[in-house]
Amino acid sequence: MKQIILTGDRPTGKLHIGHYVGSLRQRVQVQDEFDQNVMIADYQALTDNGHNPAKVTDNILEVMADYLAAGLDPAKTRFCLQSALPALSELTCIYLNLVTVARLERNPTVKAEIQQKGFERSLPAGFLVYPVSQTADITAFRATHVPVGEDQLPMLEQSNEIVRRFNNLVGAEVLKECQAILSDTGRLPGLDGKAKMSKSLGNTIELGMSSDELKQAVFSMYTDPNHLRVEDPGRVEGNTVFSYLDAFHPDKALVAELKAHYRRGGLGDMKCKRILNDCLQELLAPMRERRRQALADKGQLLAILQKGTEEARAISDAVLQDVKAAIGLNLLR
Amino acid sequence: MKQIILTGDRPTGKLHIGHYVGSLRQRVQVQDEFDQNVMIADYQALTDNGHNPAKVTDNILEVMADYLAAGLDPAKTRFCLQSALPALSELTCIYLNLVTVARLERNPTVKAEIQQKGFERSLPAGFLVYPVSQTADITAFRATHVPVGEDQLPMLEQSNEIVRRFNNLVGAEVLKECQAILSDTGRLPGLDGKAKMSKSLGNTIELGMSSDELKQAVFSMYTDPNHLRVEDPGRVEGNTVFSYLDAFHPDKALVAELKAHYRRGGLGDMKCKRILNDCLQELLAPMRERRRQALADKGQLLAILQKGTEEARAISDAVLQDVKAAIGLNLLR
Repeated sequence: MKQIILTGDRPTGKLHIGHYVGSLRQRVQVQDEFDQNVMIADYQALTDNGHNPAKVTDNILEVMADYLAAGLDPAKTRFCLQSALPALSELTCIYLNLVTVARLERNPTVKAEIQQKGFERSLPAGFLVYPVSQTADITAFRATHVPVGEDQLPMLEQSNEIVRRFNNLVGAEVLKECQAILSDTGRLPGLDGKAKMSKSLGNTIELGMSSDELKQAVFSMYTDPNHLRVEDPGRVEGNTVFSYLDAFHPDKALVAELKAHYRRGGLGDMKCKRILNDCLQELLAPMRERRRQALADKGQLLAILQKGTEEARAISDAVLQDVKAAIGLNLLR
Repeated sequence: MKQIILTGDRPTGKLHIGHYVGSLRQRVQVQDEFDQNVMIADYQALTDNGHNPAKVTDNILEVMADYLAAGLDPAKTRFCLQSALPALSELTCIYLNLVTVARLERNPTVKAEIQQKGFERSLPAGFLVYPVSQTADITAFRATHVPVGEDQLPMLEQSNEIVRRFNNLVGAEVLKECQAILSDTGRLPGLDGKAKMSKSLGNTIELGMSSDELKQAVFSMYTDPNHLRVEDPGRVEGNTVFSYLDAFHPDKALVAELKAHYRRGGLGDMKCKRILNDCLQELLAPMRERRRQALADKGQLLAILQKGTEEARAISDAVLQDVKAAIGLNLLR
């Protein structure tokens, strides 16, 4: 039997090449090997967009199109919509009784995010408890593997803790612990060299960008601000163009040679950007086309999501029934 | 159109005459006038019994039998089981994004209960957020009226606050605010004179008690510890026998005369207890019989709960669909 992956995205904007490097590419690679579930996490996106639900709902089909653009195949990967899976909310409410407020407040990932989002006293309750909702997601698919970045490891710890607590309570292995698949690529910087790539900063390359927009984005990239003349030696570290060449250029030897040349001087930023542009144009051209086709037939796009969601509903409902039966909450049909 | 009541009980033990005076009697009185929904709140009971679910599940049919015993009529009152209404969990998860952790921590009812239960740092997350789950319950039935004790008023405030927040967010009156029906009787003391009646203290009179147990309970009641001889003047205040006579004896003039006699001396505790015993025996005899009949046919008891729950499911699912549509979460079937 195949091992089971649960992964997904919060639909708060179109996906960009940071997502591609960080997760989409890996998902495409493993979709034959694993029973892969990709969830569009609209309920989770509401935990910090409760005041602006349209930001979430407007992006569901966009993200779905990005998935097909990136090469995910509906014949191999199951797509589903979180808000159309009622078992997830019910599992969340059950698990909330198995975790203390103090434990949730200690979660390092949530702590960092609370600070980053400036929530403090205005912290929505839904945001504090979202690790419990993630536990519901993971367990509802009986996921054995969850792809995460290093910073998300505490979420899986929290999930496995709840799993152990539940199994221990009912004296049976009703739920499964999961393990992480750590992403092998570090986080891709934004076009401006900033660590975080985000739509609101305007420093991303979306998968559906036009050829012209892509070119403009590449040629606006942050390089070495002290590399003023072509013949000057330049810095490769913290130079976004080289970070992207590392992440995307298939010819590693060429990239190594470009780096050496740039360091000793005599290689201009423009030339590097042209090479990167060629490489990204080649990468994104088929994605742009698949994205366009996907959005040209929204009925079909919806149908793919609907089909996967129905399968996911059957899977997650069955887990919920097991959980409820284990604690004796199966009196009624 | 009838106004709508939502009320219910946590199934953590059999119901007793404290419940009868505090709520069941009123429910029987209003069941013609209102569209009354009585929910067995098993999920809510798990918020502080997460470690012992059997305490909850073992009592669901007991409470159902108590309802019929007290005179609630399935032809007039809709009974339902909280854990069999998936819309409630989903509404809870949606509303959790509309309330801050700080606001929940300020809830006076929850604060008092946290202290009373000695939770402090071990506070289960489910318990902190149970006012949000109550908001889901109330709104899912479009309840206009919720019977509560004075101490529960902050819960309705919290609920109406979330309702206003949601309606405001979507710019339409999707949800209804509710109002309290305040119980006119104060809390009935335990047999031992303690303010709180509870099964674990063994100071209750359950609706299904046998005639002998009832008699024994009445004759064990706390009276005036300084009323040593019949001819001594006695205290009526804080004297449990008189609290119960006030609550249950139909002849108010007789009770007033007994009080006066007791105060001036010459009326023995035994005589008072005999009068109370007669009155409670008369009250409980038909309840005991209805309770026995109800539990003699558990299939029928379950069928009543099943039927009401199915109706409640249709009602609550419709509200959930309205809520999801209002925030645009209705993409899939």
